[in-house]
Amino acid sequence: MARTASLSGFPEWLPEERLVEQHVLDTLRRTFELHGFSSIETRAVETVGQLLRKGDIDKEVYGLSRLQDDEGEEGKGKHDPHALALHFDLTVPFARYVVENAGYLAFPFRRYQIQKVWRGERPQEGRAREFTQADIDVVGDGDLPFRYDVEIALVIAEALGALPIPDFRLRINNRKLAEGFYRGVGLADTAGVLRSIDKLEKIGPDKVAELLKTELGATDDQVQAALKLAGIRTEDTSFVAQVRSLGVSNELLEEGLDELEQVIEAAVKRAPGKVVADLSIARGLDYYTGTVVETVLVGHEQLGSICSGGRYDALASKGNRKFPGVGLSIGVTRLVSRILSQDLAKASRSVPTAVLVALNADDTWGEAQDVATQLRSRGIATEVAAKAEKFGKQIKFADRRGIPFVWFTDDDGKHQVKDIRSGVQVDADPATWTPSDEDLHVQVTGVSPE
Amino acid sequence: MARTASLSGFPEWLPEERLVEQHVLDTLRRTFELHGFSSIETRAVETVGQLLRKGDIDKEVYGLSRLQDDEGEEGKGKHDPHALALHFDLTVPFARYVVENAGYLAFPFRRYQIQKVWRGERPQEGRAREFTQADIDVVGDGDLPFRYDVEIALVIAEALGALPIPDFRLRINNRKLAEGFYRGVGLADTAGVLRSIDKLEKIGPDKVAELLKTELGATDDQVQAALKLAGIRTEDTSFVAQVRSLGVSNELLEEGLDELEQVIEAAVKRAPGKVVADLSIARGLDYYTGTVVETVLVGHEQLGSICSGGRYDALASKGNRKFPGVGLSIGVTRLVSRILSQDLAKASRSVPTAVLVALNADDTWGEAQDVATQLRSRGIATEVAAKAEKFGKQIKFADRRGIPFVWFTDDDGKHQVKDIRSGVQVDADPATWTPSDEDLHVQVTGVSPE
Repeated sequence: MARTASLSGFPEWLPEERLVEQHVLDTLRRTFELHGFSSIETRAVETVGQLLRKGDIDKEVYGLSRLQDDEGEEGKGKHDPHALALHFDLTVPFARYVVENAGYLAFPFRRYQIQKVWRGERPQEGRAREFTQADIDVVGDGDLPFRYDVEIALVIAEALGALPIPDFRLRINNRKLAEGFYRGVGLADTAGVLRSIDKLEKIGPDKVAELLKTELGATDDQVQAALKLAGIRTEDTSFVAQVRSLGVSNELLEEGLDELEQVIEAAVKRAPGKVVADLSIARGLDYYTGTVVETVLVGHEQLGSICSGGRYDALASKGNRKFPGVGLSIGVTRLVSRILSQDLAKASRSVPTAVLVALNADDTWGEAQDVATQLRSRGIATEVAAKAEKFGKQIKFADRRGIPFVWFTDDDGKHQVKDIRSGVQVDADPATWTPSDEDLHVQVTGVSPE
Repeated sequence: MARTASLSGFPEWLPEERLVEQHVLDTLRRTFELHGFSSIETRAVETVGQLLRKGDIDKEVYGLSRLQDDEGEEGKGKHDPHALALHFDLTVPFARYVVENAGYLAFPFRRYQIQKVWRGERPQEGRAREFTQADIDVVGDGDLPFRYDVEIALVIAEALGALPIPDFRLRINNRKLAEGFYRGVGLADTAGVLRSIDKLEKIGPDKVAELLKTELGATDDQVQAALKLAGIRTEDTSFVAQVRSLGVSNELLEEGLDELEQVIEAAVKRAPGKVVADLSIARGLDYYTGTVVETVLVGHEQLGSICSGGRYDALASKGNRKFPGVGLSIGVTRLVSRILSQDLAKASRSVPTAVLVALNADDTWGEAQDVATQLRSRGIATEVAAKAEKFGKQIKFADRRGIPFVWFTDDDGKHQVKDIRSGVQVDADPATWTPSDEDLHVQVTGVSPE
């Protein structure tokens, strides 16, 4: 497993690693569907104009052009807003999809979306150029009750809790709270303050203070207030009293306090220990308008956020019609990379196959296929040997592929099955024999740290 | 459903359409895993050099370049062999993956791979620019028994047979048979003949004859022989006698006849009616070396092949080490587009949700979530209303989303569940109530033509 990708930033898994990824994806899908989220996929490409509509992220985008077309796609230069480029997240494409298909969707529309996205960034641990995201969002037509902010956080906590990963914390803040507070202390450029606060973990409070003073002209008092707010972190709703003790009054601040209180209150009850109010969370992207979330794996904080998102009230609109939404995005590749590199989970075997049907003569391939068909009809993954080699060689073949059982049929049509791990061989009827539940399908289980 | 994609050639499905696609994908995955195929995915991008190594397909390829980098990716021009481009199939990337990871794989290596691919072609019915393929391949180290050619065809027949699609035919030929025959009649440029014969369905025998004469200098007798061979089509092994009656003798021809006979013989027995020997099948791509397959939907022949592939003995190699393979690729998007446009299959409802838990007061959301948690613990997909609107309005909401059951809890904690299709409302216990098997999960079933 000490392989390196042949193209930096484009990870590929071996079959036994892919089994771990599939387990993660299946678990997420199951949880999302149990909560009534519909699956959709959007095309991998958007127009450059659509992608660059929000935020200044153009340095990360891969543009497309047909190889034989030196002018770029259909004669367009790659900076032409109609040129095509690969999507860099699933939120912007989803907003476009909602607007285009509004007439065919029932609102509030709940969807999950699990797809690859691409960013032309410099690859490093936890950051790939091609990676899989798993998103859930709820989008309303006109308005969207705040309750969905609470629900989304709970669904994600349940989904992450079902994965073979270390303990995690959703760190939740609210943009209204922060922006209202900044306005309350007289800092009008709230987006600028958020951008600086967003750097807190990376550059530390002194440098953030410097930024706030030099770039936004903040006073010492304003800087101190902003940093005090960002320092508040509670596992219950006591953050409300701590904010109030800072003595700032503003209507938007009150609204934000009330919203964040609702999320934390529900989480304390329904996902105890999984959620903290963390008033340093800002999120760089500027389309968030309320709840904002980042998530860390406990003990793996340097990996960065494994699940982020929040409320966006103005990302999607069609004329006067607005489609406010709230959603969270799990960084599947980041999680799976960590699981694999630190052996946090393992597949019980490396192939789906439970049984290899051996051949005792080359012309018994048809009979062996009949046995296999009977086993498969009961959901037992089975393959048939291609050559009637010595049984020892066929057993070795099964062992090398990680197949637990080998099936033998002798010249008189007597059937036996051997568990090649224990060496135990017993008579068996292809019409009824079934392995234990643990051996029927590949099991992926978390490995406890020693 | 009469929507058109907002970008021509990049289809996107509505949630209820996606349920049909998911059913197709889940069915294929289940069949492939039952036969012991491992899942892998390869990155969406390859180097231009890798992609253009075989065949002259460069006009179909989408190159990549980062938007801020006017020189192309990392200063490379887009025709630089190290520049990046999107893969146009899954066979070429798989061959590269096998060579790179040979030390970590157990051969013969069986894998399935379900991913999107991209081709910059002019979109038309059945041909998209972004589409999903589902491939199975077996690759050997050094050699690969011919039996896998037979097995692959049978697995694909079983997989297609499990889908909600019309009847289908695998049309199978063998390159050795055709090339041996051409050599036997003195046509040395066998690749050239194959390219012309490949156009038979499109341009007809007269124009193919013209091509063979003008481009390859074939005589009338040679042309007649080649066209006679291409005219042979049998549902059993009688094609062998028909070929022999043409009186051509060649060693490679004999080898091909024997191989194709093995495939057809097994198929007649194990997949009756699903396979024909069709000696007109050529396949344009030149990496095939033996078995070649195309597949048509009966009554939808103009849609083109929905599953193609064959044996390739020289696609992957590492120094002197060769990795011969055989595989088939299902055109999932082509199939799903046809299913949807002709209403060949339908989902039993449009959302995964089976139950909506209604609210009788806004502050009962927590209790409603408790009910939902109990239902979900038994695998029942459940969502909770966000607002305590009038019951009629909440029922209407469920109806609009396609949710079959609404759950009510009155002020005394008495539970009832209503089937909103029949209107029947009964007492129910959240700890034990379960819908019928048909209502538990979304069912996708084929719709018989009237």
